Amino acid sequence: MNSPRHALGIDIGGTKIAIGVVASDGRVLASQTLPTESRRGIRDATDRVTMAVRQVLQDCGLDCHAMAGIGVGCSGPVNPLSGEINNPHTLPGWEGWNIVSSLTRTLDLPVWLENDADAAGLGEYYYGSGRGADRLVMLTVGTGVGGAVILDGEIYRGVGGEHPELGHMPISFDGSACYCGRNGCLESLIAGPAIAAAGRTLGLTDAAAVFAAAAASDARAEQVLAPVRRAVEAAVWNVLHSFLPARIVLGGGLVEAHPAFFVEAAQAAVNGSRLHPRRVATIFPAQLGNPAGMVGAARWAMARSARLAGPPSISAPQPT
Amino acid sequence: MNSPRHALGIDIGGTKIAIGVVASDGRVLASQTLPTESRRGIRDATDRVTMAVRQVLQDCGLDCHAMAGIGVGCSGPVNPLSGEINNPHTLPGWEGWNIVSSLTRTLDLPVWLENDADAAGLGEYYYGSGRGADRLVMLTVGTGVGGAVILDGEIYRGVGGEHPELGHMPISFDGSACYCGRNGCLESLIAGPAIAAAGRTLGLTDAAAVFAAAAASDARAEQVLAPVRRAVEAAVWNVLHSFLPARIVLGGGLVEAHPAFFVEAAQAAVNGSRLHPRRVATIFPAQLGNPAGMVGAARWAMARSARLAGPPSISAPQPT
Repeated sequence: MNSPRHALGIDIGGTKIAIGVVASDGRVLASQTLPTESRRGIRDATDRVTMAVRQVLQDCGLDCHAMAGIGVGCSGPVNPLSGEINNPHTLPGWEGWNIVSSLTRTLDLPVWLENDADAAGLGEYYYGSGRGADRLVMLTVGTGVGGAVILDGEIYRGVGGEHPELGHMPISFDGSACYCGRNGCLESLIAGPAIAAAGRTLGLTDAAAVFAAAAASDARAEQVLAPVRRAVEAAVWNVLHSFLPARIVLGGGLVEAHPAFFVEAAQAAVNGSRLHPRRVATIFPAQLGNPAGMVGAARWAMARSARLAGPPSISAPQPT
Repeated sequence: MNSPRHALGIDIGGTKIAIGVVASDGRVLASQTLPTESRRGIRDATDRVTMAVRQVLQDCGLDCHAMAGIGVGCSGPVNPLSGEINNPHTLPGWEGWNIVSSLTRTLDLPVWLENDADAAGLGEYYYGSGRGADRLVMLTVGTGVGGAVILDGEIYRGVGGEHPELGHMPISFDGSACYCGRNGCLESLIAGPAIAAAGRTLGLTDAAAVFAAAAASDARAEQVLAPVRRAVEAAVWNVLHSFLPARIVLGGGLVEAHPAFFVEAAQAAVNGSRLHPRRVATIFPAQLGNPAGMVGAARWAMARSARLAGPPSISAPQPT
């Protein structure tokens, strides 16, 4: 019989796939990481994921049928209702792949697909900085910018069940063009590649070099980072006035490397708001790091499986 | 016995208060309009509203106890949970007034308070351009800019049950200062006073004169309206990527007077989005006009009253 005490979590990004067995208290019992290499095709990816799943189960001595199911967080756009991936930008070659039906077939477990930012948001809501926040927005800043809105522990869904794209909110009329169709969206201003590109014009090779220069009080860094700070502040102002969340959690590789920079920029927005004064929303860096998406996806599978089976047998998150 | 077939709707704005008896099919059976004059104080306003309520009931020959209750849509910030108004900007002198308890006391009916944009959004959802849209965002443009997010016919609420402020989303880094605490928010760029102020620098006396000049192909009008168009497009892009609604309804006095201008600017955002292509979200001007807030507030009272009494006896909205 399926048990809601463990589930498989899979986090699919543009460069790597993380696969793990997760317990209902959030512990990762075993995990593996594969290169994504989406261009090698769908059948190849399904085979490699299936093998990795069998391996992690063996590593922690659990049977496939001891799992509540499989939660997949995937770099979007994805359609959680149909199970299809449609992301030619970071997962080329997989357009229209129905990962839910292919993994259900090979592994004989129920599979739930969500956007990777939503999965990370769920991870933070259940086990990290988002605990106790009935209105939670998470922004992740790395190679791209993702966003999740988690309302009472449920993923906010737009029309057709699909997820919004907070990373592509408009910030500046002067920014460079983004694949989303707009110039000056958030991602085009604050993601790693944007910081790197701005840094290179001043002889700083990448985003890490920009932040290192900032630490060394190199004036070039401030030239790059002032517009980034301003964009983060505008984005958080927008989130605050659009969703009025109890908490805004900032995660992703860049925030993990430079939490103070991002949290301070975000806090400036909250401090400046007269309509939603500062006591309303709190800002925190994410706690779970990279595994957030995998852990959140697994937790989602537990919750969905329990909902299929009857009243949930897993405890609600505790306030921090 | 209370019946959910009729309710009182009250729409409180900075300059006037509309009060009406509304039937469950959205018809306004009788209505009155009073000047707000909030500075005359709370007791004075309560007395005048109470008298007007008695008058409209008499006008349509219905008894107070034939009403499901009273829905109040009020220019925010307001707190729907506590019943308090806290809007020193457009309702000075009423800060901290608990309109729910004072009207409940004088009229012996249950009272529900909501933000006026939320009330208008409900009106459009049940009886206007929002029918059938499970994810609906309404933006109202007039003296100020308001916003409502209606999810499956329920008002989206932020932390503490309070409403977000879509009118104060950040649009431009160069805009003038707003009472919200930010320069270049949506309201500071597209509301009537903002258009009027920009027009006056070119010898156009007010917003109506600006739009009249545009109709006469006066080049000064385009100078004023180009940044307004750009701001509307950015705002709708933001709404689309933050909420991924099925429909965006544009209302308020300025949109009512110039629907094509606003709908075209909004449509440009939807057309330009590559992540949420145009088939996803539709843009419509509001249908109900000024009474939307009063009608929506009354409909909300019917729904809430029915929820108190048992399963709702009123029909779900039909798709357009």
